[in-house]
Order: sequence, then structure tokens, then C-alpha cells
Amino acid sequence: MSKPITLYSHGTGPNPWKVDLILRELNIPYETEWMDFADLKKEPFESKVSPNGRVPAIHDPNTNITLWESGAIIEYLVATYDKSAALTYTSSPEKYHVSQWLHFQMSGQGPYFGQAAWFWKFHQEQLPSAKERYFEQVKRVFYVLDKALKGKTWLVGDKCTIADLSFVTWDGMAAKMGIEKNYPDYYAWNQRLVARPSVQKMLKDKEAAMAAGH
Amino acid sequence: MSKPITLYSHGTGPNPWKVDLILRELNIPYETEWMDFADLKKEPFESKVSPNGRVPAIHDPNTNITLWESGAIIEYLVATYDKSAALTYTSSPEKYHVSQWLHFQMSGQGPYFGQAAWFWKFHQEQLPSAKERYFEQVKRVFYVLDKALKGKTWLVGDKCTIADLSFVTWDGMAAKMGIEKNYPDYYAWNQRLVARPSVQKMLKDKEAAMAAGH
Repeated sequence: MSKPITLYSHGTGPNPWKVDLILRELNIPYETEWMDFADLKKEPFESKVSPNGRVPAIHDPNTNITLWESGAIIEYLVATYDKSAALTYTSSPEKYHVSQWLHFQMSGQGPYFGQAAWFWKFHQEQLPSAKERYFEQVKRVFYVLDKALKGKTWLVGDKCTIADLSFVTWDGMAAKMGIEKNYPDYYAWNQRLVARPSVQKMLKDKEAAMAAGH
Repeated sequence: MSKPITLYSHGTGPNPWKVDLILRELNIPYETEWMDFADLKKEPFESKVSPNGRVPAIHDPNTNITLWESGAIIEYLVATYDKSAALTYTSSPEKYHVSQWLHFQMSGQGPYFGQAAWFWKFHQEQLPSAKERYFEQVKRVFYVLDKALKGKTWLVGDKCTIADLSFVTWDGMAAKMGIEKNYPDYYAWNQRLVARPSVQKMLKDKEAAMAAGH
């Protein structure tokens, strides 16, 4: 490949940084186009990049694809650029178990953590029973991961894959809830992820992007 | 293949029927194991089938895989049994656009429609602002699909794929909200999906399963 991928991103949301992290891990050249939230749900972004009006999205000039949904982007990146399968598997059942955990991140962790953040931080009124509902759902996600990680270092097989990496950008929020230490196998896994140089650098750049108002 | 796949399912939830529908479309032999909700979030189901304690899940004795998360199961089924790519694409960018819409169904439609159903039907108290929030999110999903379908018959390329089929089992709920006709391209697409013999048969069997108390 020769030309850098454009990553449409935003400083605060966890999802663009999930894709950012995989781009770093695979040493894929990319440049970030910072989007204002106000510009996402209108033209030209909706027609030219994402009808869903959300980030992340990418445009890859090498293959001429425009793609949104972080899980689909990550699948595209490993299929196209991870030729040695450093972050995934090519054999069954491992490759499908990677997909299973990626889908759990997309449909379980992301939406529930997102709703928890909404009712705890952004909703127009305090709704204790809604806050409680999503606090319980966040704990359930920890419980599922903790249970799956008993006696294991990574979610699938013996290496860190996109399945593991996809969870880490949402976990910062959950750590603020102070409950991660109740799930020791989850916690140790999260610490292994956070210790990776790519994650360290991503977290630092995320902080800088937010400080810069992106 | 020789032996039927076991589909762990339940009568009421939309997600198991998503997998059921793809098994039908691909003429894959399968047998349904009906699960009680009470048995999902405990042993042996959590350790033997799904640590997430939810359905759908499958066991395929032909490849000896056990898998959960409806999106991952569907990806497995087409990769393993849809050799003529009847319901998907093998070329780029179409195959990634199928993945993109499947992920939107998993992370957008499913969770938001599910939260709407929760606050409208099951939550322990009436919370008008929470109900309103998810009603707006359901409308947003219709808006995105309606916009993407302008001038098109199916979401990706010129044929019905797993991307289209994955949305149909949740749409029954949304139809009850009486808003689908406000999104004419979405509505026409949904009518095309519902007219398929496999969808007709699935909806009939879902009704029978619920009547039988599954």
C-alpha cells in the first residue's frame, strides 16, 4: 500500500479509538480527520461517508472503499492488511470465536456501556432505576469476560487478537465505576491490554485530542 | 454435511429467529433445542454453550464448533455452507458492506429496539423520558435504512443478503409502533423481505413456538 487511510474520528467517543488502535497495531499509514459532532448527522457526511452519521468511518484510497461500523472496519483491516494473521486466526474454530467476541463487544459491551454513560452523565433528568439497570448490565459484561478468561491469558487461543483489543477503549469508562477489581481475571486481562505500547500511545493521543478540543 | 446443527433457541426473542431464518434460507439441516430463560444464566449452559447466558447459540457436530452471538453465527454459516455465495458476496467492497450492515444491525438496531421494548413493556416503572429516548432511536434506525435504500432494492448490490435478512425479525416489534409507513423506502424493503417464503415460514413457526410456550 502507498496512500494513507483516512480515519474519520472524534476525541471523546470510544469507538473511533478502537479502529485507531488496530491501525497502530498493524502499522498501517493513516491520517485522522477530526469531525465535529454537529457535522456528522448532516450533509455531506451522511451521503458521502456514513448514512448513520457517526464515527468511526474510513476511506481507503488504495482499495477505494468507504466503510463505517467499527467492527466491520476492523474486520476489513485485518483481512486486507494483516497478512501474517498477527491479530487474528485463519483456521476454524478460532477465527469464528474471534468473530463471536468481536460481536459481543459490538452488541453487548458497547451499547450497554454507552447507555450507562448516557443515564449517568447526559440524560436530562436523574432516573435512578434506569441508572441501576445499566450499572447491572455493565457488571454482567464484566462477569461474562471474567468467567471466559478463567485460566486464560487472551480470549481466543494463545495470542492477543482484535477480539481482546476491541474491548479496551470502553473499559476506561468502566474503570471509573470502581468495580473492575471485583472481577480479577477480567482485571488482569485489562491490565495486560493497557500495558501494550500501542494502547499506551493511543490513550495518550486520545487525551491530547480531547485537550485540543477534537 | 450429514448431521443436523443444534440451534439453542427461544420462542419470543428476535435474535434466535435471525439464525433460524438463515438456516432455512441455506437449507441446512438443524434441530431446535428450546431453552427456558431460567436455564440460560446458569450451569451447564453457561460453561458448555455460552458464557453470556443467552440465545441463540449453535453446536455444529460436523465441524465440532460451539458458537454464540447471532452475527458471528450467521457469518460462520455463510462461510461454511453458502458455497455459491447465495446470501453474501466474496468480492470487495460488497463483502465488507455486507459486514457493515450486519454490524449496524447488531450494534444499532438490536440494542436500541431492545431497550425500547424494555422501557415500553418490561421496566418496573413508567419513565416517559427513557421511553421517548428509545422511540427516537428506533426512528433514527428507520431513517438510516430508509436513506440508504433510496433507489435500491437491497442494502448491498443487487441481491438479498444476510445484511437484509438480519433486520427482519426485529422489525415485527417496530411495526407495532405504527411508524414504518413514514419511511417509504424502508417500508417497501421490509415488505419485500416479509414476502419471502422463508420469512413467512419462520414467522409462522415463531408464532407456533410462542403458542406452545417455548
